[in-house]
Amino acid sequence: MQSAVAYPDLIALLKAIFVRNGVREDAAAILAENCAMCERDGSHSHGIFRMKGYIDSLRSGWVNGAAVPIIEDSAPSFCRIDAENGFAQVALAAGRRLAIEKARDTGVCVLAIRNSHHLSALWPDVEPFAREGLVALSAVNSFACTVPFDGRSPLFGTNPIAFAAPVRGASNPLVFDLATSAMSNGDVQMAARAGKALPEHSGVDASGAPTTDPQAVLNGGALLTFGGHKGSSISMMIELLGAALTGGNFSFEFDWSQYAGAQTPHTGQFILLIDPARGGTTGFGDRAANLVEKMMGAEVSRLPGDRRNSARKKALENGIYITKDNLATLQAMAQA
Amino acid sequence: MQSAVAYPDLIALLKAIFVRNGVREDAAAILAENCAMCERDGSHSHGIFRMKGYIDSLRSGWVNGAAVPIIEDSAPSFCRIDAENGFAQVALAAGRRLAIEKARDTGVCVLAIRNSHHLSALWPDVEPFAREGLVALSAVNSFACTVPFDGRSPLFGTNPIAFAAPVRGASNPLVFDLATSAMSNGDVQMAARAGKALPEHSGVDASGAPTTDPQAVLNGGALLTFGGHKGSSISMMIELLGAALTGGNFSFEFDWSQYAGAQTPHTGQFILLIDPARGGTTGFGDRAANLVEKMMGAEVSRLPGDRRNSARKKALENGIYITKDNLATLQAMAQA
Repeated sequence: MQSAVAYPDLIALLKAIFVRNGVREDAAAILAENCAMCERDGSHSHGIFRMKGYIDSLRSGWVNGAAVPIIEDSAPSFCRIDAENGFAQVALAAGRRLAIEKARDTGVCVLAIRNSHHLSALWPDVEPFAREGLVALSAVNSFACTVPFDGRSPLFGTNPIAFAAPVRGASNPLVFDLATSAMSNGDVQMAARAGKALPEHSGVDASGAPTTDPQAVLNGGALLTFGGHKGSSISMMIELLGAALTGGNFSFEFDWSQYAGAQTPHTGQFILLIDPARGGTTGFGDRAANLVEKMMGAEVSRLPGDRRNSARKKALENGIYITKDNLATLQAMAQA
Repeated sequence: MQSAVAYPDLIALLKAIFVRNGVREDAAAILAENCAMCERDGSHSHGIFRMKGYIDSLRSGWVNGAAVPIIEDSAPSFCRIDAENGFAQVALAAGRRLAIEKARDTGVCVLAIRNSHHLSALWPDVEPFAREGLVALSAVNSFACTVPFDGRSPLFGTNPIAFAAPVRGASNPLVFDLATSAMSNGDVQMAARAGKALPEHSGVDASGAPTTDPQAVLNGGALLTFGGHKGSSISMMIELLGAALTGGNFSFEFDWSQYAGAQTPHTGQFILLIDPARGGTTGFGDRAANLVEKMMGAEVSRLPGDRRNSARKKALENGIYITKDNLATLQAMAQA
């Protein structure tokens, strides 16, 4: 049994849950939209599925829903934000206009967020920049759950990297968002709930032996990086950019053991913005359109982001389908 | 039979070959050092093995050894370079000081090189920046030899990405350089010469069927991307950064069919420099050292770059071992 919920109604419901749990009104609106956006676009492992994690983290006192981010304008092309132990999305929203201004003025801007929590997908952070004509790259480290290539114990996070670029004439920018672990934690949790096996080469159990059992990965086991040593190198880079550069924690540094239910990694986030107008001699958006056309010519059946874009289109027309049970749970959370 | 050649002697020999083939004196010195560096550090697929490709490309008229790069100071954090159909390394050397100055002044700099040829490894381009305390990322597209994930024909290049970061107290920065194709073209050529099979999932033959035969990949076949759709997304990003952003050619755009022997892709190069002093609240180099220590604690037996660093150390002590045949060939090229 499913209900079709209109996108604005889902945002309003999720916002009420955040507000109910001590999140500032404006921050609650940002987080609710972010989570509803994931559900709307079929990124289910970062949609309403994550609400329990958000709320448990807030209630445990691990993350501060009332945090007010502090913006530090550290250089003409650099903006640092101390999220004050709040959510990274709220910090990003606070620094967004300044970062765009810097990128337009100087050609490039790095936004370095620290002391922050990120529990969502990364594509919602970069896509809006591409809609304003910028090229955007972001990376965020998480919690130690991924074994470096050739290593013996988990050290890196799932460490996603997301990229967005404008494409002239297309209704959507070209956007990808990928975990540098073999799969995302959300997907492991979804597989565990559904009782499904993981693909080969995704993870190891507590003894370090390869496994396809999601429960074994979640209970003392760990993920592997994607693409062997190459994915591991990229994951290492994300630790350096997300933590060493921003002043945030590495994935292995924070200790949440005293906060029962805490699920939000307390790390940092790296965002790079480039104004492509400062670049080549021909329009970037036109060139990106050339590349897309050529990829279609090579019979690529689906571009990065296509699945999300078509889910979005359907959801905006017909509503977002949510099971009655899940909807009842969310409604109860808004009253609890 | 091998000869131990001192590093400066190898540079001098390679420089003589470049000069003999119409390369400007200062450009020849840059290219010779770059190629000797690869041989010295055990990056054999980008070492003296590549000299024939360089020279054939020069002699065919495909690349201009006499080119003088034009630097365009396009924004406070952006520097464009028209390589004037010369080698990318020469353009990078020309813009290097300006780019470093911009990164120190504004926190970040993008160096966008176009109308350029890159036939070498990418780590020599980024490592020196890390030795000056900067974080550096570079990506270069190449020639259409790699099939996008889920596609039917080659479109992307081997599209390497390289990263370098300073590490306090270490004799070398942390550096990686990886092809986003399953393997590099140089390694396929080396396997073909040695009559060795490729690893599984590396390439397809002319009919699009999976193959481990390097000859089948080189003769009408193609490479696959590393790590499935994830590596393919990163390779796509490199086309956008290396070509669309810089104003260079995509890997599928240039036509060298009229230049017999041409082997140097005529594309562009993206370089990003970040001054980590503008970033976090604690020293980046110290934090990078923390990460390295933790990786060793996770029993990672080899960090990215370790193999090159130990080959370098040996070569600087004992000389670079080159077979007598290869040395004779190089000596003949310097006279030819």
